[in-house]
Amino acid sequence: MTGDIGKKYLAEYLAKSDPLFEEYLQKKIDEAGEINKVPAELLKQFSETARLGKKIRGALTVLGYESCGGKDKKAILDASLSIELLHAGLLVHDDFMDEDKLRRGLPSLHEQFSKFGGEEKVKADYHHYGETMAVTAGDAAFYLSWETLLRSNFPPDRLVRAGEVYAKHVVRTAYGQAMDLSNTPLTGLNNDYLLSVLRLKSAEYTGVLPLMLGAALAGETDKKRLTAIESFGLVFGWAFQIQDDILGMFGDEEKVGKPVGSDLREGKNTLLMLHLSQHGTAQQRAFQRKVLGNKKITKDDVLKMRQILKDAGSYDYVVNLGWKYVEEGKKQIPLITSDKKLQEILESLIVYMMERVK
Amino acid sequence: MTGDIGKKYLAEYLAKSDPLFEEYLQKKIDEAGEINKVPAELLKQFSETARLGKKIRGALTVLGYESCGGKDKKAILDASLSIELLHAGLLVHDDFMDEDKLRRGLPSLHEQFSKFGGEEKVKADYHHYGETMAVTAGDAAFYLSWETLLRSNFPPDRLVRAGEVYAKHVVRTAYGQAMDLSNTPLTGLNNDYLLSVLRLKSAEYTGVLPLMLGAALAGETDKKRLTAIESFGLVFGWAFQIQDDILGMFGDEEKVGKPVGSDLREGKNTLLMLHLSQHGTAQQRAFQRKVLGNKKITKDDVLKMRQILKDAGSYDYVVNLGWKYVEEGKKQIPLITSDKKLQEILESLIVYMMERVK
Repeated sequence: MTGDIGKKYLAEYLAKSDPLFEEYLQKKIDEAGEINKVPAELLKQFSETARLGKKIRGALTVLGYESCGGKDKKAILDASLSIELLHAGLLVHDDFMDEDKLRRGLPSLHEQFSKFGGEEKVKADYHHYGETMAVTAGDAAFYLSWETLLRSNFPPDRLVRAGEVYAKHVVRTAYGQAMDLSNTPLTGLNNDYLLSVLRLKSAEYTGVLPLMLGAALAGETDKKRLTAIESFGLVFGWAFQIQDDILGMFGDEEKVGKPVGSDLREGKNTLLMLHLSQHGTAQQRAFQRKVLGNKKITKDDVLKMRQILKDAGSYDYVVNLGWKYVEEGKKQIPLITSDKKLQEILESLIVYMMERVK
Repeated sequence: MTGDIGKKYLAEYLAKSDPLFEEYLQKKIDEAGEINKVPAELLKQFSETARLGKKIRGALTVLGYESCGGKDKKAILDASLSIELLHAGLLVHDDFMDEDKLRRGLPSLHEQFSKFGGEEKVKADYHHYGETMAVTAGDAAFYLSWETLLRSNFPPDRLVRAGEVYAKHVVRTAYGQAMDLSNTPLTGLNNDYLLSVLRLKSAEYTGVLPLMLGAALAGETDKKRLTAIESFGLVFGWAFQIQDDILGMFGDEEKVGKPVGSDLREGKNTLLMLHLSQHGTAQQRAFQRKVLGNKKITKDDVLKMRQILKDAGSYDYVVNLGWKYVEEGKKQIPLITSDKKLQEILESLIVYMMERVK
């Protein structure tokens, strides 16, 4: 099966959720504007990139809900916005932490506020101002997300259960973030450490959290089904992350919305880099040490690194690993739902994670 | 009435909640340690200052609950920890934003991680590392707080209502924070702007949020009572903030846990400074412009500013305003509860906000 059905499911989710999300963001900007133009501007700038998300996590929330027999399409669509708000907030914090200047082809929020300085004059330096406004926007987004979830039209016991699932996983995401921030240089990095970071920050957060949130909102209590959803979510998240690493190194600049080789420039410890550091020739590893985390690398350096990753087998290793996760995910699907249409969507969507070009 | 009964109520809350808070923090550090030593260290360092809080907001949560007839002392004590976790998380973000180096007499969290670099080696610069670890600790605290609230032993409908109240007010706190970060230099500052900042960031957050959270957990639905609690909470928060401003300028360094005149050095736009800028002589205002926000001021400058604030009537103005809020608060008390003992506590506690020396 190809990823076409999954891609279509995502597109349908976007078509339904985008207008709702826009309406929500505008309403919140207006409400903030009644207080003052500063918080309104904060939310307006935040919205610029928040609205451009791929919304994979929102769609997964709906899919988790539907897979557990949930029928209230309006309520789950509303609740799914909470995950997109959370995600947008975390990305704003992440961009500040990683000193990323671009997000989805636009200046990242701390960059935006650093340049722009708000409409008010700022007494302190603009760089710090930009960072603090971005962190504040993220904080606001976290609680707007919570409010959105709790106001969605589900029975209170399900909302409480969903909130617990949500909170538990975001705590784990933060732990992964702390580990990522504290990571050792690649040479001293061990496999387990990097895998923990990727699992916490990406696989669990991207796959497990939204699916389990949807399941909780559907009132799912069957342990076997929940375990299957969690397992599927984990490999789904891995497939997503693996393709993210591949696109970060081999992707099309226009489509990815980040400069080519940005992962390399930032010194991100991806699975590609880990494999190369362990299996590359002495010469290949010397080049890796020279360019990884080097802000001054050229496009030629990036192209050379691409070739090295192919020559050393790192590219194939990581791609194969991604497809292995897809196969593992497929095995869980019959345990999640017996609905043939939903089974198809689950299967195609995890395939699409590896097929996507952005 | 003096603040003695209120002070005692706070002390009793501390005696009951501190062991619970310690146990909770240790449990979370242990759980994080099962993942990796980095998140465990993150929480451990976070706990160092979190545990030293005055816990006014936690106590107010319990008081709001009791004032609405709530009887489950264990459950409300558990839920009140969520407010202290939130508060500790927000302070960590706030210290990073304000570039405060001290919190409760200890290095603030970003300072701590900047020096210390974590147990892992850090590739990037230590200053940025410290800031990012602090923001991550705050983010983790927000979701630990949420988890703590949702796991407290209340009916789901009350938890959902409480969660909505909580989220709504933290969003407003973030809006106030954005306004504070974007504030104009004092000369261009208008009264309304500063009052909005203080109202959102401090008065509502400190007084209204915890009391209304407690009321929601008690299942309170009476509109008149809720309005009275909200009004009381607002003036309670104002009294708290006013005394905070006074202590930030006139307080004892040892007791406050911050260097004398730190508000002056950081250029905080307090009510004291606003009054002086509007009512001081030309000479007094010239001195104010020279020292406000000047990191190099001496202790003598601080002492001179204290004298000027007294001479210009700014000190008296602000102190009187605080007591006016206390009087306004007293009027609300009979509308909140008819229980004489609780009435006494509410009255004495708001008085204590103005009497406290730390």
